[in-house]
Amino acid sequence: MSDSTPNFRPEARSPRGFADKRATQIAIERRLIETVSKVYEDFGFEALQTPAFEYADALGKFLPDSDRPNVGVFALQDDDEQWMALRYDLTAPLARFAAQNWDALPKPFRRYAYGSVFRNEKPGPGRLREFMQCDADIVGSDRPEADAEMIALAVAGFKALDVPTRLRINNRKLLNGLLGSLGVVEPGQQLGVLRAIDKLDRFGLEGVRLLLGAGRKDDSGDFTKGAMLPEAAIQPVLDFVSAGGAATRADVLNRLAGVLANSPEGQAGVEDLGRINTALAAMGVAEDAAIFDPGIVRGLEYYTGPVFEAELLLETRDDKGHAVAFGSVGGGGRYDDLVARFTGQSVPATGFSFGVSRLAAALALAEGGGVEKVRGPVVIINFSEADMGEYFKLAAEIRAAGIPAEVYLGRSGMKAQMKYADRRFSPAAVMVGGDELAAGTVTIKDLDLGREMALQISDNKTWREGRPGQVTLPRNEAIKHLKSIVESV
Amino acid sequence: MSDSTPNFRPEARSPRGFADKRATQIAIERRLIETVSKVYEDFGFEALQTPAFEYADALGKFLPDSDRPNVGVFALQDDDEQWMALRYDLTAPLARFAAQNWDALPKPFRRYAYGSVFRNEKPGPGRLREFMQCDADIVGSDRPEADAEMIALAVAGFKALDVPTRLRINNRKLLNGLLGSLGVVEPGQQLGVLRAIDKLDRFGLEGVRLLLGAGRKDDSGDFTKGAMLPEAAIQPVLDFVSAGGAATRADVLNRLAGVLANSPEGQAGVEDLGRINTALAAMGVAEDAAIFDPGIVRGLEYYTGPVFEAELLLETRDDKGHAVAFGSVGGGGRYDDLVARFTGQSVPATGFSFGVSRLAAALALAEGGGVEKVRGPVVIINFSEADMGEYFKLAAEIRAAGIPAEVYLGRSGMKAQMKYADRRFSPAAVMVGGDELAAGTVTIKDLDLGREMALQISDNKTWREGRPGQVTLPRNEAIKHLKSIVESV
Repeated sequence: MSDSTPNFRPEARSPRGFADKRATQIAIERRLIETVSKVYEDFGFEALQTPAFEYADALGKFLPDSDRPNVGVFALQDDDEQWMALRYDLTAPLARFAAQNWDALPKPFRRYAYGSVFRNEKPGPGRLREFMQCDADIVGSDRPEADAEMIALAVAGFKALDVPTRLRINNRKLLNGLLGSLGVVEPGQQLGVLRAIDKLDRFGLEGVRLLLGAGRKDDSGDFTKGAMLPEAAIQPVLDFVSAGGAATRADVLNRLAGVLANSPEGQAGVEDLGRINTALAAMGVAEDAAIFDPGIVRGLEYYTGPVFEAELLLETRDDKGHAVAFGSVGGGGRYDDLVARFTGQSVPATGFSFGVSRLAAALALAEGGGVEKVRGPVVIINFSEADMGEYFKLAAEIRAAGIPAEVYLGRSGMKAQMKYADRRFSPAAVMVGGDELAAGTVTIKDLDLGREMALQISDNKTWREGRPGQVTLPRNEAIKHLKSIVESV
Repeated sequence: MSDSTPNFRPEARSPRGFADKRATQIAIERRLIETVSKVYEDFGFEALQTPAFEYADALGKFLPDSDRPNVGVFALQDDDEQWMALRYDLTAPLARFAAQNWDALPKPFRRYAYGSVFRNEKPGPGRLREFMQCDADIVGSDRPEADAEMIALAVAGFKALDVPTRLRINNRKLLNGLLGSLGVVEPGQQLGVLRAIDKLDRFGLEGVRLLLGAGRKDDSGDFTKGAMLPEAAIQPVLDFVSAGGAATRADVLNRLAGVLANSPEGQAGVEDLGRINTALAAMGVAEDAAIFDPGIVRGLEYYTGPVFEAELLLETRDDKGHAVAFGSVGGGGRYDDLVARFTGQSVPATGFSFGVSRLAAALALAEGGGVEKVRGPVVIINFSEADMGEYFKLAAEIRAAGIPAEVYLGRSGMKAQMKYADRRFSPAAVMVGGDELAAGTVTIKDLDLGREMALQISDNKTWREGRPGQVTLPRNEAIKHLKSIVESV
């Protein structure tokens, strides 16, 4: 109980990797969540909220031991000795919920959810340990059309948000099939191939060719060892990767069908994508909004078929004007084995997750990201304790007219009160001093107009005498004038 | 890593005291939060989100030691050995934030916040360990008018929610002053007086009189020891408590002024309430919406002046029809010392908290609580894999008309699909079978109408031939008909 020590003063700071959010950032995240939730509901998904905690074994990543209880997640032991951990995504809790309630659920079970997820990782700039996701999933459908819906609703979501993105779609079965047919079955070598493919954007096809073979030396002379594929296997992999460059989704599939002619698993993957394409076309998803890209590698191990990644097409810059690559702002895929962890019975599932915090951060940095500073209330200046009843009456009237309003409740003078209204980004300040009360008037200062006019007046005297944007008018015209100010901002 | 053990199957269950929420409950909570947030914004409060975790010393309740790291809160040690804990309310994190950012904030700082809070307590029926609160606070104003605003916005919030409540208002200074003037200064005896006063609703004035004196024997013969006040002190306390029965707020204050004539602290408390009353009247807060009640005892130790409690006036019943007392569904008060814990400098503050989860639970149980089952989407029946393009096209058209819609994506037959639509509480099912496709028609079943008509038809044959609520019409009239169904529900 060290804070009962006399004069113990804790330092006021939030824990490492956890951040406070102010009004503007909150407004962005809320808009994202509301818009995406609406799209999810339009597609027939129902809301579900699971708690922040799950039993650690249900999360599936690990069971903590007393030496390292916090590997990747935030875990603690309940008073009955069971380990609980904060969810690190919204998919694992869904799998637990679906397994727990399977018999009672309408099937396929379509749910959406949003909320904080927690990762116990080393925090860094832009890497928080608590962030928001917003997911939709279908549990209990093995149809490729369910995957197509995930893509279509991701496209619809970003469109509703007016955020330019492109969905990139791949299928785990394609590369698995190709490598199998080429005899590349050793997991380490398969991983090497994945890593080489992942470098296509940076090093181009020739760089990938080197990384599939013996290795690649970069400009600084550093050498990266390659996947050591035999010569005969390298070209098919390059053909596979470059199939993504074809003009339409159907063309990509035609090329892939050729490359994968010798692989039944690969052909099955192409067939999935063919049915996805038919459904996408029926739902009117444009060719440039969702493309097939065999070069997409998604990290999560639990995916078993189609995978999706949303690429942000907005230019983002940091404080110093440097371009910032945001990469993926959402993703998902098919995971047919997660529910079976609990029940032993295979339940096919597919889903998509909007990275809400990540997208909000990108929009805050992007030109045209639509981020606007949140407006404060109309502020009623507090001249005299004796007149506060008048101020509160007026504040209530302004609120009743649908305009946020407050009486200044500190104890500072006029100048500080005007500064306060300015810092709250208020549209107007209202003054009801002794003169106004005697005359039955109010004085209203249009703060935006005042700021604008201040830029045009260089002479201090003119400024003070001109009282830019300030008018005195009868009390019963106050609401009308405030409305005109608020409506013009 | 025991889940890498072959065939290890975790049990699918959520941790004790943590619950999953389905669509209807989520809809209630969202409505509460949106409505109250809007009222907070109207009163000039800006949004703030602090993280789920705080350093344990910042929460102020305790510093965990390795033997009992989890007393009351969920705490764990970060990898730099610092103890973090999940917030147990939204006030302690606000105090930390205000202390951390005081110089940079507009003052007084008016913020609102909502989110989950966590209590590591023994779970029970209706007692969860994670629940939602929605708070507004003013930090940096010592004016009683700031307390009046808290009361007014609580009243406005419940009014906007259409939930009948009454705000009960007290002031810590009143009883402190009274007891001081009566020479009752021993903390144990003061606590005894508080406990006695808290029993007014159950035992009446006579019961309180006994509990203030030697003690009270109940009908079963059990004896509760009293506060052992001297005879001369009992009547003033009873006069104090019964002052709350006066007709208006002003009348209560008049009575209290009499009872507290010998106590400067008590008089100061009455004066605070007088200024609160002036502001409440100016804001149009009705006499029966907010009353002064010297019998209100709020548990939290950090209150230093006025305290508020929202009493639910809605009759709630459990499954068996028994009346359920919900008591307080919100509360707050003035806490002038919380920020000073960090800075040593006193910063006056006052706030109000809506108990969102508690209120939602009450509304779900109350007649007239306004709780409606959440509607599912229009369901397009899936007859044939070959025609799925048609289904998806139609689904996209229905959504474009603003009506949630989905194609059934399971693999069950017609009957199960209709049952699915029924369980989703869908307004309509749409059938585009071979006949319809050939004829350029669709068949639409109004599921509400169907349910209604089913109640009137007892004859199975009539039922099947009548196809209640079902019409076949040209494809291009489908949207119009669906709209008429959705608009009529």
